[in-house]
Amino acid sequence: MKNAVVGAAAVTSLGLLAGCSPKQEEPAQANADTAMGDDTMSATANVLDPKTMPDAATASNFNVVEESATTVGTTLDNLKTAITGETGATTKYAAWAKVAEKAGYDHIARLFNCTSDAEKIHIELEYKLAQKLEPGYQKPEPPEVPEHTVDLNLIAGANGEIYETSDMYPSFIKVAQEEGNNEALQVFTRAKLAEAYHAERYLDAYNTIDTPTDDKYYLCPICGYIHKGENFTACPICLAPKSSFTEY
Amino acid sequence: MKNAVVGAAAVTSLGLLAGCSPKQEEPAQANADTAMGDDTMSATANVLDPKTMPDAATASNFNVVEESATTVGTTLDNLKTAITGETGATTKYAAWAKVAEKAGYDHIARLFNCTSDAEKIHIELEYKLAQKLEPGYQKPEPPEVPEHTVDLNLIAGANGEIYETSDMYPSFIKVAQEEGNNEALQVFTRAKLAEAYHAERYLDAYNTIDTPTDDKYYLCPICGYIHKGENFTACPICLAPKSSFTEY
Repeated sequence: MKNAVVGAAAVTSLGLLAGCSPKQEEPAQANADTAMGDDTMSATANVLDPKTMPDAATASNFNVVEESATTVGTTLDNLKTAITGETGATTKYAAWAKVAEKAGYDHIARLFNCTSDAEKIHIELEYKLAQKLEPGYQKPEPPEVPEHTVDLNLIAGANGEIYETSDMYPSFIKVAQEEGNNEALQVFTRAKLAEAYHAERYLDAYNTIDTPTDDKYYLCPICGYIHKGENFTACPICLAPKSSFTEY
Repeated sequence: MKNAVVGAAAVTSLGLLAGCSPKQEEPAQANADTAMGDDTMSATANVLDPKTMPDAATASNFNVVEESATTVGTTLDNLKTAITGETGATTKYAAWAKVAEKAGYDHIARLFNCTSDAEKIHIELEYKLAQKLEPGYQKPEPPEVPEHTVDLNLIAGANGEIYETSDMYPSFIKVAQEEGNNEALQVFTRAKLAEAYHAERYLDAYNTIDTPTDDKYYLCPICGYIHKGENFTACPICLAPKSSFTEY
């Protein structure tokens, strides 16, 4: 079932899992079902309780789209490209949070602010590695931000995150694996996984734009994963506990 | 908060809401929160219980992306374009269901089959209207289908659905409004709304590709909306009751 063969030895030998979170010891069991009945009005509550950290060796969603739009270089080049992309993303999302707030969509403003902060986490992780490889490297200036209506900002956000998770980051992960740059491999891996959840959250917000709930968004301070609502115990990407998350 | 002013009179005068489902009478209350506590291990179960049918007059997610890739014609032209697009989608998803099944991703095979059937609903609705406007019109042949890995099929599916919900259908909805074609307006509106949920479901499947739950997918037979899991009472698009849905 999983595309776990290619590159598995390489990644394991790089010690990818030796990060800031507990090591994986048990097989994945991501959701504990607590069904309370099957009549129409009762609810099924799934609690996200991950036990395994995914990576390119163990997960099945690390392939690069066939028509890639990414210019791939060395890991240093790729770190700079990623920082530029993430700088664009964090700047846009912060601006689009203000657009949403001004238009009265407070729930969407919270999501944009949360995701803007998630991209700042990626920037700092990537900047630290870029500086190690090129002392004196400075972050790029934030770009001018196009502003659309609230719904189209969500669509633009989803499209950008899908590009990053299915094209840019998996392309950069391949190079980091080839170069044996374990730190970059871990940073790109976590960013890649987080972006896919960001895209899903944006589409959820698009679908419920006029029917918000009171659900809060929770940001993982380690990898930038975002959860909507209370029903989780830990980050599905890096296993950081819920108690460490920031609420929006 | 809502972009409810432009076109509201026009749409109401067309009787958009006089569809197959109950008329809207109450303000939107899409989610009934049934929180069971706020400690880490308890779960919040949101039951989707919609009371209002969204449309271009009342909902905020009907804007067309600025760089539209859609060739817009008369509503008859647009129906034919939509049928061609939906034929491609249903054919792809059926093929990609087989790819997923063969690779052991049964949950993703179920989602692709469910979404393939959802697009067939759209095709039949659009075909009926196209035939009314051009007796003798025949459906196009299904296209050849490119096959990727399971994860990239999900990404391709999400990209296609995002295009349809934020570009093709809202473009066609504008023309149907201008032409006063109420039937096409309703069909395009429901398809537009369903496609956005399809995109979200595909991203959820991408994110949980290796950590499936036992959740079933439920297809609304009226509009092609897809729900994941038990926690809903009715379709948020056309208000069809859960009991009428097909399980995958």
